Amino acid sequence: MENALVKSIYRDPGPYLKKEIQISGWVRTLRVSKTFGFIEINDGSFFKNIQVVFEETLSNFEEIAKVTTGSSLIIKGQLVESPGAKQPFELKAQAIEIEGTCAADYPLQKKRHSFEYLRTIAHLRPRTNTFSAVFRVRSLVAYAIHRFFQEKGFVYVHTPIITGSDAEGAGEMFRVTTLDLEALPRTEEGQLDFAKDFFGKETNLTVSGQLNAETYSMAFRNVYTFGPTFRAENSNTARHAAEFWMIEPEIAFADLEDDMELAEEMMKYLVTYVLENAPEEMAFFNEFVDKTLLSRLENIVNSDFGRVTYTEAIEILKKEHDRFEYPVEWGADLQTEHERFLTEHIYKKPVFVIDYPKDIKAFYMRLNDDQKTVAAMDLLVPGVGEIIGGSQREERLEALEKRMVELGLRQEDYSWYLDLRKYGGTRHAGYGLGFERVIMYLTGVANIRDVIAFPRTVHNADF
Amino acid sequence: MENALVKSIYRDPGPYLKKEIQISGWVRTLRVSKTFGFIEINDGSFFKNIQVVFEETLSNFEEIAKVTTGSSLIIKGQLVESPGAKQPFELKAQAIEIEGTCAADYPLQKKRHSFEYLRTIAHLRPRTNTFSAVFRVRSLVAYAIHRFFQEKGFVYVHTPIITGSDAEGAGEMFRVTTLDLEALPRTEEGQLDFAKDFFGKETNLTVSGQLNAETYSMAFRNVYTFGPTFRAENSNTARHAAEFWMIEPEIAFADLEDDMELAEEMMKYLVTYVLENAPEEMAFFNEFVDKTLLSRLENIVNSDFGRVTYTEAIEILKKEHDRFEYPVEWGADLQTEHERFLTEHIYKKPVFVIDYPKDIKAFYMRLNDDQKTVAAMDLLVPGVGEIIGGSQREERLEALEKRMVELGLRQEDYSWYLDLRKYGGTRHAGYGLGFERVIMYLTGVANIRDVIAFPRTVHNADF
Repeated sequence: MENALVKSIYRDPGPYLKKEIQISGWVRTLRVSKTFGFIEINDGSFFKNIQVVFEETLSNFEEIAKVTTGSSLIIKGQLVESPGAKQPFELKAQAIEIEGTCAADYPLQKKRHSFEYLRTIAHLRPRTNTFSAVFRVRSLVAYAIHRFFQEKGFVYVHTPIITGSDAEGAGEMFRVTTLDLEALPRTEEGQLDFAKDFFGKETNLTVSGQLNAETYSMAFRNVYTFGPTFRAENSNTARHAAEFWMIEPEIAFADLEDDMELAEEMMKYLVTYVLENAPEEMAFFNEFVDKTLLSRLENIVNSDFGRVTYTEAIEILKKEHDRFEYPVEWGADLQTEHERFLTEHIYKKPVFVIDYPKDIKAFYMRLNDDQKTVAAMDLLVPGVGEIIGGSQREERLEALEKRMVELGLRQEDYSWYLDLRKYGGTRHAGYGLGFERVIMYLTGVANIRDVIAFPRTVHNADF
Repeated sequence: MENALVKSIYRDPGPYLKKEIQISGWVRTLRVSKTFGFIEINDGSFFKNIQVVFEETLSNFEEIAKVTTGSSLIIKGQLVESPGAKQPFELKAQAIEIEGTCAADYPLQKKRHSFEYLRTIAHLRPRTNTFSAVFRVRSLVAYAIHRFFQEKGFVYVHTPIITGSDAEGAGEMFRVTTLDLEALPRTEEGQLDFAKDFFGKETNLTVSGQLNAETYSMAFRNVYTFGPTFRAENSNTARHAAEFWMIEPEIAFADLEDDMELAEEMMKYLVTYVLENAPEEMAFFNEFVDKTLLSRLENIVNSDFGRVTYTEAIEILKKEHDRFEYPVEWGADLQTEHERFLTEHIYKKPVFVIDYPKDIKAFYMRLNDDQKTVAAMDLLVPGVGEIIGGSQREERLEALEKRMVELGLRQEDYSWYLDLRKYGGTRHAGYGLGFERVIMYLTGVANIRDVIAFPRTVHNADF
């Protein structure tokens, strides 16, 4: 008999009702009396469980009555309506087979566990309601990102993970090597001899695929990356992981305004997709994790995102300087408290801050006519602050070279990047979206360790 | 005026014909006479170019007449039918603006370049016909993989890239470290002190996400990974890269037969998707790269894949042993020449070889009742040989522990993996698909360096 998925049954019970069907899954709870019992089964396909009723007429009734939480079962039975009960239907078991037993020391008994404890059993936590919801939503959002860009004809490009360049000179990096640390090769001058390393030079894990993506944007016009990126920063916060996934679209014949329009459309698409495709999970988050979640997300979908220049934003914030821990001053980066004040109190909706001082932004951002600011944009959203950072790129060869000289970047390290400006360059723009930040935003989960299956942070690479 | 994409115009010219439109893109060729000229423009959205006609009535006719290949232009004009010509329509320019010029030393002049040379300008090669086709197909196939699994309700899981375990004890690995190689910390005993490294222990780049994916399969039932994996192997062949992407589905309550059905369905889906969504590119490959391509792929879609046990396959191959360079013997791994003979000459279609000797397969594969073979499967396809490797996993705790002891694997390194067998384990199975191998198969491109945007191989981590 073919196995039915619980998700299919919930979405359209009609074809299954009053029929003999087979399901299989894991025991979430089991209650039993002398003559009958109830089992809540989760089959992995759906957030909700299905209730199984079994009676003493089962040949192995005694054995089933002793089954422990976490065990896996295969159940044949008839799906019947259960009017008035909590669930719309239940499965009357005709035969139950134990697929796999669950040892008595199973850590996921019915009691509530702290997120901290569950991190220590990251291989089991997706079996809980919260993490089953988080990681199904994570999967759906990943897919929604691909759908959004593919439906617009963007080309997905896998930029390299191992890199010989250091992208923006920003962010501490992980070294990648096959050298024997107990017998490091040296040149005649006594220097470490990276010519003997696997790639014949020093290599690191990428911090961004943007510069590589730009090369593809100059061929395919509209491209995006979606891959892992790395920071070797010793910051043990709820928002930093050493390994995380990033999405970086890059669009040609496009300016900062086009960039913002794309970001706004994408954010709305992602929110809509997850609300439509994971309504049970989203209702669960709204009830148990963050009671403002759904109203916050509806605000995203229904707002026209605001626009404000950095300079204007500084004026607004200065008037309220008593509220802030960090000083407000033109030329300094906005702190999260500033960002949240702008989006939550001033605009009460998502807002783009544009035209930041050039000295707090990366070398590749396009210099504005004022010679002081660059065509950068950060998207701030209520509840979080910055969620997207992007810019129009400097497409003018001379301006880019001048900026690189100012910052002490060596042109020979970026010759291929400069080529893009020599050979049919165009206005272009792009942005970066930290995937985990988006998942935190869409679920209300506060710690990045709880939205990554097996998080990598300072002193932690377990599993 | 809004910009029209060349792809939209080709797919449905109706709404654009006889209208004033704007396009933008890069000059592929320009031919000019005294009073008029033709420009082939590629705008990145589509494999084909659009022809632009311009006349001396343009105010900047002289300037446009001198535009070089590779320059970027913005063109306003009227789309008109061009009956009898090579192309169904052309754009009669009313205004042409130069967005970006292209220097005279642009390497992509009209002449044909070797693949080897184009690898040295990997940042420019997607602007050629061949690589524009390869990397658009790569993007489409990546999306098709997500679509296939998501439509079946599979959960996409990002397994870790940096890992503290060594997966199967197989494959040479890249070390990831933040230790200062000039001042390596040592313990009092003089050992390298990895407690001082970023993660507090030795870490490497992953060679497979399978073991991690299995943990999620025991929660979500059906899951898949799609991410980068790494091999630090010193093999300078056309089929090996140090960094490549892999897809690893894992299914619960499933055996080897279910695994093969999934693999067959997926392969047919991918081929169908790419034929439907990249017909121009596929026709190009069939004409210029591999003239057997389309017939080979149609054979995939229209065949019921064969099944043969390893033991039967050895019997078949022994009868033909004169044909082979490598000996055919029970217990030895099949070589590519053996695999290709089976699929190309015996079956003339894709074929699964199952039940391999346990000693040439990984520790986690399920031992068959004969105690000699394991429930492994390799999918062989004409033209390539092995394209997928998978197995039913050993779900029996005792059998798995016994095998690990035989192979000298330390149980403490795999305690979380063994937990899956203690806590409600189920029959389960999965496979791995090398993404680049699939792209090579679907395009006919023979060298893995030509299907990776910026390939990483021995002594090469350029760009």
